[in-house]
Amino acid sequence: MSRFSEPQDPVFQALNSSVGFDYRLAPYDIRQSLAHIRMLGRCGIVPQDDVDEIVRGLELVRRELEEDRFEIAPGDEDIHMAVERRLTELVGAVGGKLHTARSRNDQVATDVAMFVRDRCRRAREAILALMEVLASLAEAHLDWPMPGYTHLQRAQPVYLSHHLLAWFWKLRRDHRRFGFCLDAADELPLGAGALAGVNFATDRRLVAEELGFARVAPNSIDAVSNRDFVIDYVGAAALCATHLSQLGAEIVLWSSEEFRFCEVSDAFASGSSIMPQKKNPDAAELLRGKGPRVVSHLVGLHGMLHGLPLTYNKDLQEDKEHLFDAADTLELALAAAAGMLRGIRFRREVLAQAAADEFPAATDVADMLVTRGVPFREAHGIVASLVRHAIDSGRTLSDLSEDELRGFSDRLVPGFHELLAERAWLESKVSEGGTALERVREQLAEARRVLAEEGA
Amino acid sequence: MSRFSEPQDPVFQALNSSVGFDYRLAPYDIRQSLAHIRMLGRCGIVPQDDVDEIVRGLELVRRELEEDRFEIAPGDEDIHMAVERRLTELVGAVGGKLHTARSRNDQVATDVAMFVRDRCRRAREAILALMEVLASLAEAHLDWPMPGYTHLQRAQPVYLSHHLLAWFWKLRRDHRRFGFCLDAADELPLGAGALAGVNFATDRRLVAEELGFARVAPNSIDAVSNRDFVIDYVGAAALCATHLSQLGAEIVLWSSEEFRFCEVSDAFASGSSIMPQKKNPDAAELLRGKGPRVVSHLVGLHGMLHGLPLTYNKDLQEDKEHLFDAADTLELALAAAAGMLRGIRFRREVLAQAAADEFPAATDVADMLVTRGVPFREAHGIVASLVRHAIDSGRTLSDLSEDELRGFSDRLVPGFHELLAERAWLESKVSEGGTALERVREQLAEARRVLAEEGA
Amino acid sequence: MSRFSEPQDPVFQALNSSVGFDYRLAPYDIRQSLAHIRMLGRCGIVPQDDVDEIVRGLELVRRELEEDRFEIAPGDEDIHMAVERRLTELVGAVGGKLHTARSRNDQVATDVAMFVRDRCRRAREAILALMEVLASLAEAHLDWPMPGYTHLQRAQPVYLSHHLLAWFWKLRRDHRRFGFCLDAADELPLGAGALAGVNFATDRRLVAEELGFARVAPNSIDAVSNRDFVIDYVGAAALCATHLSQLGAEIVLWSSEEFRFCEVSDAFASGSSIMPQKKNPDAAELLRGKGPRVVSHLVGLHGMLHGLPLTYNKDLQEDKEHLFDAADTLELALAAAAGMLRGIRFRREVLAQAAADEFPAATDVADMLVTRGVPFREAHGIVASLVRHAIDSGRTLSDLSEDELRGFSDRLVPGFHELLAERAWLESKVSEGGTALERVREQLAEARRVLAEEGA
Amino acid sequence: MSRFSEPQDPVFQALNSSVGFDYRLAPYDIRQSLAHIRMLGRCGIVPQDDVDEIVRGLELVRRELEEDRFEIAPGDEDIHMAVERRLTELVGAVGGKLHTARSRNDQVATDVAMFVRDRCRRAREAILALMEVLASLAEAHLDWPMPGYTHLQRAQPVYLSHHLLAWFWKLRRDHRRFGFCLDAADELPLGAGALAGVNFATDRRLVAEELGFARVAPNSIDAVSNRDFVIDYVGAAALCATHLSQLGAEIVLWSSEEFRFCEVSDAFASGSSIMPQKKNPDAAELLRGKGPRVVSHLVGLHGMLHGLPLTYNKDLQEDKEHLFDAADTLELALAAAAGMLRGIRFRREVLAQAAADEFPAATDVADMLVTRGVPFREAHGIVASLVRHAIDSGRTLSDLSEDELRGFSDRLVPGFHELLAERAWLESKVSEGGTALERVREQLAEARRVLAEEGA
Repeated sequence: MSRFSEPQDPVFQALNSSVGFDYRLAPYDIRQSLAHIRMLGRCGIVPQDDVDEIVRGLELVRRELEEDRFEIAPGDEDIHMAVERRLTELVGAVGGKLHTARSRNDQVATDVAMFVRDRCRRAREAILALMEVLASLAEAHLDWPMPGYTHLQRAQPVYLSHHLLAWFWKLRRDHRRFGFCLDAADELPLGAGALAGVNFATDRRLVAEELGFARVAPNSIDAVSNRDFVIDYVGAAALCATHLSQLGAEIVLWSSEEFRFCEVSDAFASGSSIMPQKKNPDAAELLRGKGPRVVSHLVGLHGMLHGLPLTYNKDLQEDKEHLFDAADTLELALAAAAGMLRGIRFRREVLAQAAADEFPAATDVADMLVTRGVPFREAHGIVASLVRHAIDSGRTLSDLSEDELRGFSDRLVPGFHELLAERAWLESKVSEGGTALERVREQLAEARRVLAEEGA
Repeated sequence: MSRFSEPQDPVFQALNSSVGFDYRLAPYDIRQSLAHIRMLGRCGIVPQDDVDEIVRGLELVRRELEEDRFEIAPGDEDIHMAVERRLTELVGAVGGKLHTARSRNDQVATDVAMFVRDRCRRAREAILALMEVLASLAEAHLDWPMPGYTHLQRAQPVYLSHHLLAWFWKLRRDHRRFGFCLDAADELPLGAGALAGVNFATDRRLVAEELGFARVAPNSIDAVSNRDFVIDYVGAAALCATHLSQLGAEIVLWSSEEFRFCEVSDAFASGSSIMPQKKNPDAAELLRGKGPRVVSHLVGLHGMLHGLPLTYNKDLQEDKEHLFDAADTLELALAAAAGMLRGIRFRREVLAQAAADEFPAATDVADMLVTRGVPFREAHGIVASLVRHAIDSGRTLSDLSEDELRGFSDRLVPGFHELLAERAWLESKVSEGGTALERVREQLAEARRVLAEEGA
Repeated sequence: MSRFSEPQDPVFQALNSSVGFDYRLAPYDIRQSLAHIRMLGRCGIVPQDDVDEIVRGLELVRRELEEDRFEIAPGDEDIHMAVERRLTELVGAVGGKLHTARSRNDQVATDVAMFVRDRCRRAREAILALMEVLASLAEAHLDWPMPGYTHLQRAQPVYLSHHLLAWFWKLRRDHRRFGFCLDAADELPLGAGALAGVNFATDRRLVAEELGFARVAPNSIDAVSNRDFVIDYVGAAALCATHLSQLGAEIVLWSSEEFRFCEVSDAFASGSSIMPQKKNPDAAELLRGKGPRVVSHLVGLHGMLHGLPLTYNKDLQEDKEHLFDAADTLELALAAAAGMLRGIRFRREVLAQAAADEFPAATDVADMLVTRGVPFREAHGIVASLVRHAIDSGRTLSDLSEDELRGFSDRLVPGFHELLAERAWLESKVSEGGTALERVREQLAEARRVLAEEGA
Repeated sequence: MSRFSEPQDPVFQALNSSVGFDYRLAPYDIRQSLAHIRMLGRCGIVPQDDVDEIVRGLELVRRELEEDRFEIAPGDEDIHMAVERRLTELVGAVGGKLHTARSRNDQVATDVAMFVRDRCRRAREAILALMEVLASLAEAHLDWPMPGYTHLQRAQPVYLSHHLLAWFWKLRRDHRRFGFCLDAADELPLGAGALAGVNFATDRRLVAEELGFARVAPNSIDAVSNRDFVIDYVGAAALCATHLSQLGAEIVLWSSEEFRFCEVSDAFASGSSIMPQKKNPDAAELLRGKGPRVVSHLVGLHGMLHGLPLTYNKDLQEDKEHLFDAADTLELALAAAAGMLRGIRFRREVLAQAAADEFPAATDVADMLVTRGVPFREAHGIVASLVRHAIDSGRTLSDLSEDELRGFSDRLVPGFHELLAERAWLESKVSEGGTALERVREQLAEARRVLAEEGA
């Protein structure tokens, strides 16, 4: 039928064929085709008898796919071709009517948009599940003091619950970001044809409704060239994966012999057959290691689009492998993070001891002076001398006597030793969003409210 | 005051100092400080007299900055330090009270969030301006036929207006994406202190209100470590820049001697002193060339965060240069795109001639057969033979006689020659979002509605 | 044997298992193990009888692999474990001696280094093959004029051979770059043990010799943490793929209706079942589209290493998929480029006509004036006026009479019309590396010399 | 002179102008111009008197540049234009002859190649300096035991010298990589003209010789479009920066309260005015943070080239800022790393205590059994039981009596307690490249040989 006199070169076929990866779009392709052919029937473009026959055939193909009996034939360049080929085998020439008022260009874009919507929803669910784990962990470790770090140096003590909730809010933003993506992918490309629209008075809103799209793409040229929703999805996945990379890095650190803040469960670690005392936090390391992988897909997608003129270009075929692996990786990472944290065991004593270091309280002593009217920078000077004095004499702050303190400032007493008492300076962080227990309880309530609102 | 016995190494200072780039945050820093000190006064943490004095000093610093009289001193490691140093020079020791209940960590995060909100708004305005140019261009070239391309091969004719509007909708999505970013940055970090909250019962909502933030960050640890809004902004900028890269690439192509579809104005091109006939579409090339630059900033930011444990780490200082250059580059590119398109001249005759090629109409002939009851794939076969016949005999489709046509199918006549008549097959793309004039007019109305709604 | 009381979580196993992709290392693993066990025998660390038995077993495993009979068992976390498990099934407990004086850490690094060396060699061969195609094409189109472009504007005519050879030299650099990589991977990690060396006086040079490594890694800690050679390979692949992306983009452009400079063969294109006149240069588009994919792997690898402390961390497992896909993609792209170019057909007349545009010769006219003593910038002024005069009067340069020319400068005649004669200004580019035929012939001789030297 | 009727738009000028960053190329531009004009004189293309005058003028411009008196004029689009403009102001119209037989395209490429060669040399010097610091540190801490890590878990003890030398060899590869880059940039583009060569019989080898280039670019089209050497440089910089990121991350870790392995000097840290005990390892954090920055430049450069047809396109202007910042960042990071390590203080006791953990020796006990004839996997089983027994009874390995040991295997004694003696199992890592002192001494000798050979 084609004027091509030469067969395709096997090297070209290897380069060109996408069925090796786009077979994953098959379920979407079938659903799309069902909606499309029904619309063609409703609009009188294809006779209802033919529609019925094609619907029957598509259902047969769907069953073959679900039962893993569907076979790719040698000439099937992509999954769309494979489905139509099989349909025609099953129902005969009438199958050829399915492609009326449709082109591969709008068909592929629609499958991918459907895929993205699905995976946005799954990402949101997985994120909520992880948020729930974090909220529960925070509740279970509400008043466990631990050191907070800046520059990986102990800076100020916080409650473990407060630290865990920091991750909750990062994930909360991821959840909202996938909400944006979901909306971005909620526009039906189908009906754009090859690029210019189609020669039939189709009803695109009918198709949109059946497939659950909120809108139809307003411009056919844009519709077939648009891959923004893929980048939106992979961008959201990249940031979420980067958060998990940070979380993983922290667990790796805390699992070290030097920190000993926590121990991951056996179910998420690997051991050594010879060193039974050894437990490698592999899951945490892989959470960390997967971040750059998802980011690299984002880079690949931007690169693919760079400088590409309208409308469809074959380069766009590269979108799928980036998207698929980003989605698989993210979902696996989210599940692993949730699983790992569900079984994690924190070491209360180790955390408390690390948090007991008194020197971080120097800022709090200065703040006490400030409330007693000493200007901030002057207060700092007084306390710095005090700390140096303690260090030079090999003592800690609370070892200093009231007399000694008066030598530095007459406003240090009373209250100095009380301030250094256990938890006093955690509980003094009373500002909104601070680590004082009351504030953490408010946070937890808000976290629970968010979870309830999102239906977790 | 510090126990450090050694001065800092000049190499370390060069590495560590950020004042060379973060001076751009100065206006935000002043506004933030004004809101902060006023709140401290309202909450009774700093006496009102001191507050007044500090406010007076800050206003003086602001004026020095605005009048470009502000001087960075050798010891000013960053702009925050520089501002406080200058304030204290101007109002004396009371200036030291400004930093009460605040840390550099929440201060920096707040400045950056304010910067991001500003640039989101500016990006949205610049995008709307470019959308307006596109809508106007589409109106001015409503019924100019041109070829639509797939694989850079002429595929189906479209109206230039339809093609231009494709860019409109891509930018529409960019506009919405920056809306998401704006909201993401609308959460006040200030009040988180170093990481744990502060020792004072501050009123963060008061500060949020004065600075126009919609919410306060719910967790102090998250607040000082969060740079998601920077990545959101740069991610949105990257996709917008990638769109402009595609637009630029298309203008470069269309400006070539081979296409000759358009000519950019002298104001956005460079010439050759010796080849006056030559005009290089530099602006379009640079639009293309700037895309990867913004994408590279996104990569850098993700890299910076990868594997970073909580809370503040010095690595975060790397956020600013990526952000600043992304914002500057994007805004310049948007302005250049708008300016370039405002002055562009399309060549009606050249476009029309390129669109007149009859062979792309083969699909339309097949669709006509389909509407006459021939199954889609069979119709394709008939038309393919027809096209081959025309090519083999050195003619175009409309040269074929009705008798010849009947030899291929009795359903080709009547209507065949009418279908090939000028514009018939543009006007037949009547599906929603298609290129038929009526549809483009609807699109334009919708585009205008969007612009009005967004206040352009 | 392990103290682990809980079984691994299926999610963790999915995250942790690498056998799904590292089975590709099996052939290298077998070769490595053979060399390792023979060395252990030669050094008296394992008795020769045991060595013989293990060698026999490994050969059996190798055969199973080659004949695709090797089966992965459920517990096989990676290919190394799978091979050892199968070996022990085949030869009994003695198989356990294979892992003497070896750790998974140095074993994996060695497999990967062997893989990289192999793929460097294959890349070099494929590059040479493509260089050969380019040299042959240049010979076959030695004196075909075509326009050279800057800014995608016709600038100066060149010979097609000269243009094609530009690609030759880019690939020449790729070939040398892979030579550097080959050397970078030519250092044996094996013998480094887990990280500190092994408790046996092994002879690493013996193993290096058998496996064809030039050197042994000098530091065991570096050996197990080093993935530089992977980045070197993928970096070289990225630049080569970027070159192919540029080549592909050019062929896409030249295949357009507007350029019509060339036609790719049917074997490397796809058509349309209905538009037989249509031929999409898919292979060229995919060459373009694959560039960013390989670059994204490079980004992923750098990301993986960022901030990773010594020595082995599980994150390193991420190296393999990036590497494997980069190698597969590059080799496929190189083969496709060679195949596509072998069958390409250039259109002599179209190229010649595009090259015949006289205005680009303006520079050459100015240069003629320069050789006659007119300062360069003044010469430019004269010629610019001349060109404008021609354009304004609707003529081309050679239409101007000698009298008219004298009105601009008395040094324009004689020689002016001769200079504009066909090819005169191609042939005047006599500088080394220029497009004058003599120079191109020198280039070709040099190109052939390079090919001979490299054994192509 | 130009036919352009409209002035350039300020927005376009802001986008198009490069003088804001390419002024850094001025010294190279002057050197290049001097070599070029002398060659033109030697070849008789420009009279010697004019050459002398231009040389005199260029020397004046050079002095203005060196003395920071050179002024950019409003119309100077780039530094090349600025230099020529100033030259002509100084020597009059004869200055216009400088641009004979040269184009901006080959001129820019040459400046950039010269810049790259310079920075390759500087990178190599800075790398050698850092390698020297590492070798000296290794010598000074030759026999200090410390734990070696896998998965950030203590795995096997090593000497600190051995660990430090691991970084030495990574940098050694960076040094060699920059050697490759140096060679890649050692090809003179000048003489390629705009793209096709020039109309004069120039002597490019003369210019190459004067400027110290080893070769001349063999193809003019390739010469003006080639930016491989920029990517080679930035690629090498990225890997080196990634190594420094890893080194920085390790120092951050080791500086934590939990590790306490080392303390960076005051000169490379920042403190807190109020917490004198606090020292933030900012330099180490920034070493880590700068890695992704350099990688992002590499991504930007690949992006810039993707899909770009030959020859010169304005996009190439984007190469410079990526290159300049990569070079500045790398050199600063290398200097900071060397400075930071020169002043670092390791804590012998802390390291030794961390290394004294006996359980990592389990592998060594198993290896002892292997040398006594027990198959490797069986030996592992015995030792695993042994370790569990010790843990369960709250003892460490050396607490077990010989009688107890015999209960597990009769081959454990004698030798068991000797093996656990201090350093025994460091010293048993006798394989080449292992941590046994003798082996480290060999390594150090080799390291010193390398430094001497490279002229450090």
